[in-house]
Parts: sequence; C-alpha cells; structure tokens
Amino acid sequence: MSIRVTVWNEGRHEKKSPIVAEIYPKGMHEQIAGALRQSQGLEITTATLDQDAEHGLSQERVDRTDVFIWWGHLAHKDVDDRIVERVHKRVLNGAGIVVLHSGHMSKIFMKLMGTTCNLKWREEKNEREILWVTRPGHPIVQGIDDHFILDREEMYGEFFDIPEPDCTFLISGFGGGEVFRSGCTRTRGAGRVVYFRPGHETFPTYHNANVLKVIENAVRWAAPDPALARIGFGNRKLGWMSDYPTGNPPAV
Amino acid sequence: MSIRVTVWNEGRHEKKSPIVAEIYPKGMHEQIAGALRQSQGLEITTATLDQDAEHGLSQERVDRTDVFIWWGHLAHKDVDDRIVERVHKRVLNGAGIVVLHSGHMSKIFMKLMGTTCNLKWREEKNEREILWVTRPGHPIVQGIDDHFILDREEMYGEFFDIPEPDCTFLISGFGGGEVFRSGCTRTRGAGRVVYFRPGHETFPTYHNANVLKVIENAVRWAAPDPALARIGFGNRKLGWMSDYPTGNPPAV
Amino acid sequence: MSIRVTVWNEGRHEKKSPIVAEIYPKGMHEQIAGALRQSQGLEITTATLDQDAEHGLSQERVDRTDVFIWWGHLAHKDVDDRIVERVHKRVLNGAGIVVLHSGHMSKIFMKLMGTTCNLKWREEKNEREILWVTRPGHPIVQGIDDHFILDREEMYGEFFDIPEPDCTFLISGFGGGEVFRSGCTRTRGAGRVVYFRPGHETFPTYHNANVLKVIENAVRWAAPDPALARIGFGNRKLGWMSDYPTGNPPAV
Amino acid sequence: MSIRVTVWNEGRHEKKSPIVAEIYPKGMHEQIAGALRQSQGLEITTATLDQDAEHGLSQERVDRTDVFIWWGHLAHKDVDDRIVERVHKRVLNGAGIVVLHSGHMSKIFMKLMGTTCNLKWREEKNEREILWVTRPGHPIVQGIDDHFILDREEMYGEFFDIPEPDCTFLISGFGGGEVFRSGCTRTRGAGRVVYFRPGHETFPTYHNANVLKVIENAVRWAAPDPALARIGFGNRKLGWMSDYPTGNPPAV
Repeated sequence: MSIRVTVWNEGRHEKKSPIVAEIYPKGMHEQIAGALRQSQGLEITTATLDQDAEHGLSQERVDRTDVFIWWGHLAHKDVDDRIVERVHKRVLNGAGIVVLHSGHMSKIFMKLMGTTCNLKWREEKNEREILWVTRPGHPIVQGIDDHFILDREEMYGEFFDIPEPDCTFLISGFGGGEVFRSGCTRTRGAGRVVYFRPGHETFPTYHNANVLKVIENAVRWAAPDPALARIGFGNRKLGWMSDYPTGNPPAV
Repeated sequence: MSIRVTVWNEGRHEKKSPIVAEIYPKGMHEQIAGALRQSQGLEITTATLDQDAEHGLSQERVDRTDVFIWWGHLAHKDVDDRIVERVHKRVLNGAGIVVLHSGHMSKIFMKLMGTTCNLKWREEKNEREILWVTRPGHPIVQGIDDHFILDREEMYGEFFDIPEPDCTFLISGFGGGEVFRSGCTRTRGAGRVVYFRPGHETFPTYHNANVLKVIENAVRWAAPDPALARIGFGNRKLGWMSDYPTGNPPAV
Repeated sequence: MSIRVTVWNEGRHEKKSPIVAEIYPKGMHEQIAGALRQSQGLEITTATLDQDAEHGLSQERVDRTDVFIWWGHLAHKDVDDRIVERVHKRVLNGAGIVVLHSGHMSKIFMKLMGTTCNLKWREEKNEREILWVTRPGHPIVQGIDDHFILDREEMYGEFFDIPEPDCTFLISGFGGGEVFRSGCTRTRGAGRVVYFRPGHETFPTYHNANVLKVIENAVRWAAPDPALARIGFGNRKLGWMSDYPTGNPPAV
Repeated sequence: MSIRVTVWNEGRHEKKSPIVAEIYPKGMHEQIAGALRQSQGLEITTATLDQDAEHGLSQERVDRTDVFIWWGHLAHKDVDDRIVERVHKRVLNGAGIVVLHSGHMSKIFMKLMGTTCNLKWREEKNEREILWVTRPGHPIVQGIDDHFILDREEMYGEFFDIPEPDCTFLISGFGGGEVFRSGCTRTRGAGRVVYFRPGHETFPTYHNANVLKVIENAVRWAAPDPALARIGFGNRKLGWMSDYPTGNPPAV
C-alpha cells in the first residue's frame, strides 16, 4: 500500500523572483515531488496556495493524504484558518507532516507546537551550514553520513522557540557561529510531526541529494499506521464512558 | 521576592449547583487561594470569568502574574480569544501556568499543547482514585508519600490526547480500572506548564491536604526565573540578526 | 532482507515448576518464537541461559542478531558480565532489544537504563491487568484496540525506577489499584530499547494474541537501520579529529 | 538549610603540567569551590582521586553530600568501582551530580547514562566556542544572556553518545564548524544529573564568570528535595507488597 504524499508549497517566491524561478522553474514543490516520485511506494501530488480553491487542500484531498510536506514563508497569513484546522485535525487523527525551513512560522506548525516558533535569522550572506547527525540509527537519517555540508544557506539560530523535541536528529552549525536544532520529531495525537530546517528559496537546497534523502526518510517515518484507518482511537473512543472496561462497576 | 499567583476560576458551577456551593461557598478559587495564602512567599489574587471586564485578566493583571492557576469546564468557549492570546503570550515569556482538572479542554491549555486534549470520562459514580508518584524527588511531589487516595472523584481515562510530557510525576488508577497521566510538566517558550488532574466540582477535592500540597509545589516549580524580567530572551533577541556574535563575518 | 531475532530466555522456571512447564512445554522462548515465525520477514532463533556455552550468545550469534528479546528472572546474577557487555555493545551499535516482564532487573536492562529498575510487585493473587494505549498511532500498538485485558497477571506497581521514557505507549491498571508504565521506548547509542511488562511465568500470557502482537510490533520497530551496517557512525567516527569538516581550520 | 556540595576532581593534570598548575595553582576543584563559597546557602568541600583513602569519598562523606561536582579525565579507570557504586546509589536516592567536561567518560556518568558517552574531539587548537541558550527561563541558565563566548576551548563534537536528554539548555558551536549539546539535564531514580561541557584543563575556563554561574545554578537545580531524606520512596517502598493500597483485595 502506497504512502499518499501531498507536497504543499506557498509557491509565490517562484513567481516573484527570477533567481528562485531559475533554481525551481516548476516551483519547489515540483522539485521535491519529482525526487520523491523516483522512490518506490510513494504516491505524490502537489498543491499550492493560489492554485485551487482551498489552497488545493479540499476536505477530500486532506482525507486522502497520509503525509503532508509544508513549505511557506511570505504568505503564512493568507492560509485560511479553516484549512489549517482541517490539516491539524487530519494530523491528530494519524497523518504525518514534514515542515520545511520557513514553514516554522506557518499557522499549522505553530498550532501543533503551541509556541511562537520564532528564531534568529540572517539571510543572503551565503553562509555555510554543516548539519550533524545527533541520533545515528534513526530511520530519518538512514543513509546519511555523520554530517553533510550545504555551502550556502540562510542562517537560523537558537533560541528556536519550540517545545523540547521527542528526538533531535540533526543540529546545524553556521559559518557565523550560530547553532540550530535542524531536525526534530514529535507526536501530536496519533500523528507525527517532523521539522527539517534547510531550504532557503534563493539557494539550490532541494537539489541536494542529502536533503532529498532526509525528506524521503521523514515521509516514511511520519506515515500513519495503516491499521489506524480501521480502528482509529479504538472501540472505547474518547469522551463519555457509560460502562466499564470489565463490564461491571467495581464493588464499593 | 514573592511569587505573584492569580487563581482563575470559571466560577459558574458554584452559582448553579447547591452541591458545589455547599462544598465551596466562596468558589473553588477562594478555597485554593485560602490554602495558598497560608504558605510563605506567595502573593495570591483571584479572578473569575464573569467577575470583571476581561474575565479579571486585564493586560495589567496578566503582566503582574508570575503563575496562573486555571480551572474551567462548562464555559471554555466563553473565554475571549484575546484574553487567551494574552495569557499564552505571558506564559511563553516566562510565566507559569497550573491547569487543573477540566481545564484540560480550556482554550489556553489546548493552545499550549497543540492537540485536542480530549480523554475518556465518567462522572458521578463516586469512583476511588489512587494517585501514584512516578517521579519521586521531583519538587512538585515534595512531601507527598508514594501515593495518595481520593475516595470519590470523577474518572478520567487514557488515551489523554497530549504531547509526550517532559516529565510525568503522577499516574492515577481508578476503581473502574482506567488509568490516567494525572501530573505532567512541560516548558513552552520560557514558561512552564503543569497539568494536575483532580478537582471535580461535586467532591471536596480542594479540601484535601495532598491535593493542596501538590498545587502549592506546582506553583513554586512553575514560577519564572526572576532574572528573566531583566534579560528576557537576551541581548540578541529573536528575529533578524544584522551582525555576528563574534563581531566579524567568517572568512569565506 | 529479514530481521534476525534472537529470543533469549533464562529457561529455568520451566524446568523447576510443573505449572510453568505445562503452560510452556518447550519453554517461553519457543512459545514466543513459534508465534513470531508465523510473521513474514522475521528470522527467528532462540537461546537460553544453560543451553550452550556463553548462554547461547557467542560473539558470532550476537553479531548476527538484529533484535534481542529478553526474559529473565531468578538467575539474573548467573548471566556472565562479559556476555552482558557484548549484548550492550551490540545494542549501542544499532541492534534492538525488547525486554519482557521480570527482565526489568536483568543486568542488560539495568546497564542500559542506569537506574535500579526496581518496582513494587505482588504475585499469585491472580490480579486482573488492563493495559491502556497511551500513544495511538505508534507502530508498536499497530492493530491493538484502545486497551486489552489480561484476566490474571502478577502486579507491578509504580514507582518503576527508570529514566523518563522517550515514549510511553502502554500504562496498566491492576485490580488492586496499582498502575504501571508497561510499554516504554528509548534509544541508546544507535540502538532501540523497548520494555514490555506482561509475562508472569505461571500465567498463559504469551498465548495471548494482543501480547504477541505487541512483541512482534516491538521487534519491527526496534530493528536496526539496514544502512547502519555499512556506514556505522559515519566517516568521521567518534574520537580524535585531526582535521576539520570543511578541510581548513577557521581563520583566527 | 544549606546544600552540601562535594567538588570532586581527579587532580592529576595540575601536578603533571606546569601550564595547568599555573592556571589552577590549588587545583581546578579549589578554583570552582572558591567561587561557590561566595554564594549563599552552599556548604562546599572538595575531594580528589589521590588525596585520601577512597578518593576522599568515604561512605560518610557520600551520605552527607547533596550535590557532587565531577571532573575527571586521564584516570577514569583508577576510580574504584566500589566508590562509583556508592556515588551511583546516592544519586539514585536523591542526590544531584554535575558532570563537567571530560567527566563525560567517567565511570559514574557512563553508568548513569547506559551508553558509551563517546564524542568527537580536537584539542590544543585554541578553538572559539559559542554556547547558545536553548531553554531560556530554565533555572540553570538564570542570569545568562542568550549566548556566551569562550575564546579558547577544546572542541567536542556530535555525535555525543548519550540518551535523548530530558532538557537541552545549551548547544555549542565551535570555530571548526562542529556543534555539541553542551548542557543537558536528566533524572535518574530520585536524583538529578547535569552535564556541562566546558573546562579543558589548559584554558582558564573555570575563571569565566558565565561558566561559574552555570555551575552554581546547576548545583541549586540538582539539589535534592529536603523532604526526601525523611520519606524516601514512601511508606510503600519498592519490592514485594503483601497488602493493597486500599486495604482490601479487590472483589474477584
């Protein structure tokens, strides 16, 4: 059974900036989607903010998505609250979401984290980023060496205002001396949330083989338990319980 | 320097139900406040949903609160979103919040957790609850034996839809066989969040010495670092960094 | 590629007690192994304390094990420290280990946890255990409803002296009122550690379909990243680094 | 009531190296102790490996220690296993321990962690270290700005083979591009464990005001609950329970 992935991208930088358009002629979403399509067992579609009604995230599409990939930046505020609510609910019910780069301040990520998700940043200085593996053996860093280097990236620095992660699998060091928790996992409800830092739009980051490998691994890790569609939260769902698990009330 | 505590209570059950009014003639908030006032170094005020404009949580009051205690149930939806936003921001900037019992589905707790915070429940059956200490030595269970018993409480059962806690200090077992993570801590931003389960309005739970001791300990644990008011997130705050921590950009 | 599983069992209760021998005529290890052999992609062998030299855990066998299952009780002290060291090293290098029931005080589990792993217990009273899922959607509870019941088990109660788990996927409630964190996961080095509580030798617990399903899921979750055998901790391994990741030392 | 602190130091580098002796004429332990003695409510003693019988860690001394500070490097293997066992037991029973720098491979730290605690390192290159606060508001970083800089330190790099921390309060970036989780907290039993990275013996690190402030804060955070001495793990201690928390066995 395939993992159904929706690669969602704001998609505006590509239209506004010739630099971005040159690096990603079909948009970042199509670049990422194209790479994932070469991997077995994944069924990939894309959606963007302005493409369709409901940002391409109709109820039907959301229901048929196992893992979301999310890239946004300039237009976080233009994402409709009802769509955010819809994706949030789907994640809590078992879907995965892989939030990329500036998606750290998207409504959906902030809603899942409960914090501002703010950080320090410095761009266009072409800083070198080294990403160090801090949890070797984790499925998300499968096939990744102990570190990899991106010659030019935007700097993101701590304090990154997120809750303590369940697992931190990558930490970055930047040329300027800053550090950043670049790869983190968490559960929310029955769903899984991955944050993965790289991907400034003016650099060819999503052409990098290591970056694409981490995204693919993250998708597989975050994919829902197939049994969940059937049993959900189980026979005794959440809410009011009139009866007892063993049938009879306890002796008083 | 005292810890400034605001005990916030919805305060409607006490007006609607003679049973609740009899147990808490001045409201649950005053019962809790009264107990805390006997403890040194705490400066206690109370506020309720209907008492004043802005639910008694004006910007000034919120700014002068170090730790919030929060009890709500029937009227979660009547709490103004702007007030929730204000308390949320204050917590992320370093305040503590101790959420009690049915406060698990308050807007503020759900916003801090990022999940539905839903659970199983069964009330009015007078079930016995035993709360077991799962982190002896933690400041919040200071003075508490390895367990304590509440003869009659409402049942709350797992799955409790919360993110994996930083620390689980109490787990309850109920007469009917259900279990529940009754005491959990987390950080959000620079602030600290405690959830503590007991406190169904029709039982005299906030007259129980162990329950009051845990609340007092939780307030002390969640109180902000006094230095934070002065340095906040530090000289290099969050956002755009024009310069480098070491003064000069790195050699390229 | 199959997951190579070694089911290790102390194997002495079965020889000493007619009750245990009747429930597990070939030993608990063979009962568990038999169930796992019906599942695809697993390659199962067994070993016991007294069976062979080195408790059936020669260096060769340990090196060819992807996931260990561990049941021990009376004879923890008879397990040779060098064998414990060998299994420990293998886990840190990427193998998984699923520790069952009274294995909580095995040398290998205590060494991996760093604590006493002690707990409260009461046996032979035929207590009912209800295991509640506290992380729906986790691969280890795949196919498990929101709870399952074991009519008769030994009681284990909190405080269970373990470090805060990475994830708690099951919590038990017992007939006597005690509670217990019955399913927990952690990483150690590049390896994964699962503790799963049920399995008192005088009850037919390892004939229970839910128990066997959790064990199977745990084996799959704990299995090592296949790439790890090739890259291990990566090109720049741990220890002394004479050079720099970017080739040149930084300008001073 | 004062916090009784024992600053333990291997103490051999100071005797072997004129460079180290010049920076720390009375030993690193006395430098740290001297700074802590200027802080209220702390009762400071020191001990070294070769000083007295039992490395200055007699049973009586260990019993009267609330928080240990531990610096070791060359002579980890010379620390007697029985002394390690004694300190380990004391920590699990509620004491704190603050492990510094090369203490990461001390027997006591490895025993508490359950892993190799290995890492990458490069020394004597006078690398600049920037330590970034990743949990503002935590008591251990009280009074610390968002970062501080050590002009010259030994490099420690990831992967640092430790279990996922309960809280990571500092992450370092080094001039060469490596990163490191330099400040982490955990609980073990009823005790608290802090790791704090800086302190290479050939640099004047323990003369740095920020470093000393973090150590002082760590001591206060790790100090045991005073009530613990009285109640320990509670009336129903760990082990066999003949009776039930509610007095009577449950109805069958």
